[in-house]
Amino acid sequence: MPFSPALLTDLYELTMLQAYFAEHMTDVGVFSLFVRRLPKQRNYLLACGLDDVLAFLETLRFDQPALAYLDSLGQFSAAFLRDLEDFRFTGSVWAVLEGTPVFANEPLVEVEAPIAESQLVEAFVMNQIHLQTVLASKAARVVEAAGGRQVVDFGLRRMHGIDAGLKAARAFHVAGVHATSNVAAGQAYGLKIAGTMAHSYIQAHDDEGDAFRAFAHLYPDTVLLVDTYDTLAGVRKVVELARELGPAFHVAGVRLDSGDLRALAVGARQILDEAGLPSVTIFASGGLNEDEIAQLLAAGAPIDGFGVGTDMGVSRDAPSLDIAYKLVEYAGRGRLKLSTGKALLPGRKQVFRVERDGVADHDVIGRRDEPLPGRPLLRQVMAGGRRCPAGQVTLDAARAHAKAERDRLPPRLRSIEPAVPPYTVELSAALVRDWEALRRQYER
Amino acid sequence: MPFSPALLTDLYELTMLQAYFAEHMTDVGVFSLFVRRLPKQRNYLLACGLDDVLAFLETLRFDQPALAYLDSLGQFSAAFLRDLEDFRFTGSVWAVLEGTPVFANEPLVEVEAPIAESQLVEAFVMNQIHLQTVLASKAARVVEAAGGRQVVDFGLRRMHGIDAGLKAARAFHVAGVHATSNVAAGQAYGLKIAGTMAHSYIQAHDDEGDAFRAFAHLYPDTVLLVDTYDTLAGVRKVVELARELGPAFHVAGVRLDSGDLRALAVGARQILDEAGLPSVTIFASGGLNEDEIAQLLAAGAPIDGFGVGTDMGVSRDAPSLDIAYKLVEYAGRGRLKLSTGKALLPGRKQVFRVERDGVADHDVIGRRDEPLPGRPLLRQVMAGGRRCPAGQVTLDAARAHAKAERDRLPPRLRSIEPAVPPYTVELSAALVRDWEALRRQYER
Repeated sequence: MPFSPALLTDLYELTMLQAYFAEHMTDVGVFSLFVRRLPKQRNYLLACGLDDVLAFLETLRFDQPALAYLDSLGQFSAAFLRDLEDFRFTGSVWAVLEGTPVFANEPLVEVEAPIAESQLVEAFVMNQIHLQTVLASKAARVVEAAGGRQVVDFGLRRMHGIDAGLKAARAFHVAGVHATSNVAAGQAYGLKIAGTMAHSYIQAHDDEGDAFRAFAHLYPDTVLLVDTYDTLAGVRKVVELARELGPAFHVAGVRLDSGDLRALAVGARQILDEAGLPSVTIFASGGLNEDEIAQLLAAGAPIDGFGVGTDMGVSRDAPSLDIAYKLVEYAGRGRLKLSTGKALLPGRKQVFRVERDGVADHDVIGRRDEPLPGRPLLRQVMAGGRRCPAGQVTLDAARAHAKAERDRLPPRLRSIEPAVPPYTVELSAALVRDWEALRRQYER
Repeated sequence: MPFSPALLTDLYELTMLQAYFAEHMTDVGVFSLFVRRLPKQRNYLLACGLDDVLAFLETLRFDQPALAYLDSLGQFSAAFLRDLEDFRFTGSVWAVLEGTPVFANEPLVEVEAPIAESQLVEAFVMNQIHLQTVLASKAARVVEAAGGRQVVDFGLRRMHGIDAGLKAARAFHVAGVHATSNVAAGQAYGLKIAGTMAHSYIQAHDDEGDAFRAFAHLYPDTVLLVDTYDTLAGVRKVVELARELGPAFHVAGVRLDSGDLRALAVGARQILDEAGLPSVTIFASGGLNEDEIAQLLAAGAPIDGFGVGTDMGVSRDAPSLDIAYKLVEYAGRGRLKLSTGKALLPGRKQVFRVERDGVADHDVIGRRDEPLPGRPLLRQVMAGGRRCPAGQVTLDAARAHAKAERDRLPPRLRSIEPAVPPYTVELSAALVRDWEALRRQYER
């Protein structure tokens, strides 16, 4: 079904835009995107999704179908719709780079533009940063649990739609996942793609051994799926194939996809080793997540790589974040909200990461213009509606950045176990003073 | 990032396709899509997403960028790639209509085509049916809990990507949700769109009352958001506005978005009623789900409608289903899998819903060709790669079908509490005989 990208927004944004237009409210509105609290299973979040936000802002236009649709709703004036025809995003964006670990209340993105512009894009900016940050943060845990073994994304079939399938592969790459099974993601992002074979291929042959033989003939260094009928019997058929093929046998591995993966991996390893096939690796899949991977490896399962699908693909233990995109300044004045449980930090901000011996010790959220100690995490990535150099980062550079930044976190934070104590995030004295002064104004 | 729709598949599908091509395996493969078990918080699933599957199958082509990308991978032969140039989906599809309640192990879709065709589309078919069934099933619970009050989808910002945002609005419509805030979904599907105002609009004005006045001037029958600073003080400002405007006051409602919604709704209702404004309704939002809605209403909260976002938008309590797409027949012979915990029912199947006094009593999963009592749920929706009349259902018809079908479920199934006993699904004697005969063959 066709739709106009500019309409990827909530109706109230457009009704508010018309109100701003009617009231001649054209001053700069600064919106800050942050996560109010971390899910209890996350020691940090890995910021991701910025590139898609910047690409959207650069190309945002109301096309004729969008204007015609809005006109059909009968609540927008001809003058306002004419104004939308010329709508462009002309503002600035400050953001932490993709792959940066972030914590509760820290701005990931601040959007500064005439308020109609920074207001309209709320849903899209949140949607993309939320999705990719949810998924990169989950994948970072899976990668950590795998301890250097390859992790392959198998999740397309149960992710939430096509866009999620593509963006997940992207976010997983940033988080250190080795490859994806999603061919379109390979095409779109130049990612490494990988795959083995499905049960259906084995089932379609009358004999499992015949299926192995035919597949290995076509793909000599393939990974054979051995659990369709009886896993260890399947492994023995791989051994038979090796004897049959002799030096022409180059099968890279076997895949286990069900049952007691630890016991089966031990059994498979033993059969392969006894047959003189130590180079045939064991690849495991089937409902895996970081906790199960950690348990398998702690129990000594001789597994060389993991295919991870649904749990990582929907971030099942924490499929959403309490992410917010809030007005913090309008017309040069800090703005607050006093709603219960939904306080926000006013004004343009910066996050300073204070390190000790190369390891992150704590963060300070301060005013953007403060000269505080520590490494400032927010960079200007867009000015006047165009990307700055800091907004032009390749996906591989984001992956390298994520690795470097995670390597600078203390081990208790990188762990998949809850960090005790959690990371410390402080507010600068100047920011607290601004906040309190503003609260006093509002409460008068 | 551009991608080719035909590549929305896992790499192994394409390597298997090349193997089928090399082995001249062109017989019909029948794949059955079903959910192995229901999440414990779901008494039934509401099948959804079929229309997107059929549209995909009708238009599936390998475009030149897709072929060039596959060629660049260096693992596909020129002959195979030439074969893909002419690839079309030419098969049949049987499916339950969108909006049909279904249970564990019941086929939602069966795809029958030369095996390359039915194999390739696995990921897309699963992805779309999974997403929309997850979301429609969740939304059906929210609609049930709201007991006839309007439910509006506010979830775009935290759904998993753009496709999910659009498809969710579609699935929610099928499930009985009143409207969506997503403007692009309104454009794409002709859905009713709705919205109120955001905190940012209030914040951007120096005075909350001024913001209300300006917005109500432009949109006389709007809903005003009253919780930015102090909820009941906000309601009193609405009353002041009513006094000021007199007969020109047409504000339809107030929205509460934070705090103790029950207490605030009672307080707001009292203030409005005492001011002679009984027609101003109360609309609640802010982290709601079916359980909270049920609790609010059970506690007598005078709330007239609900905006529901993230919890419904990602189906937070059950963001994924154990959905499978499995080969059940190839070359006219039933196919099995014996993997632990992943058994499947062989052959082409039908689901018969047996009703008593117009209420569903139990289902029987049987062979497609069995003349069993009960209403057959699977219909042929595609033949020869083109839709049959049963595959051409409007979204409003699907919504009506969903309502009619849910009305025929026993009340314990429609309830958001776990059904005791759960619904009964039996296997027909003929299907069990087929299954056992096949198991004996496989286990020989």
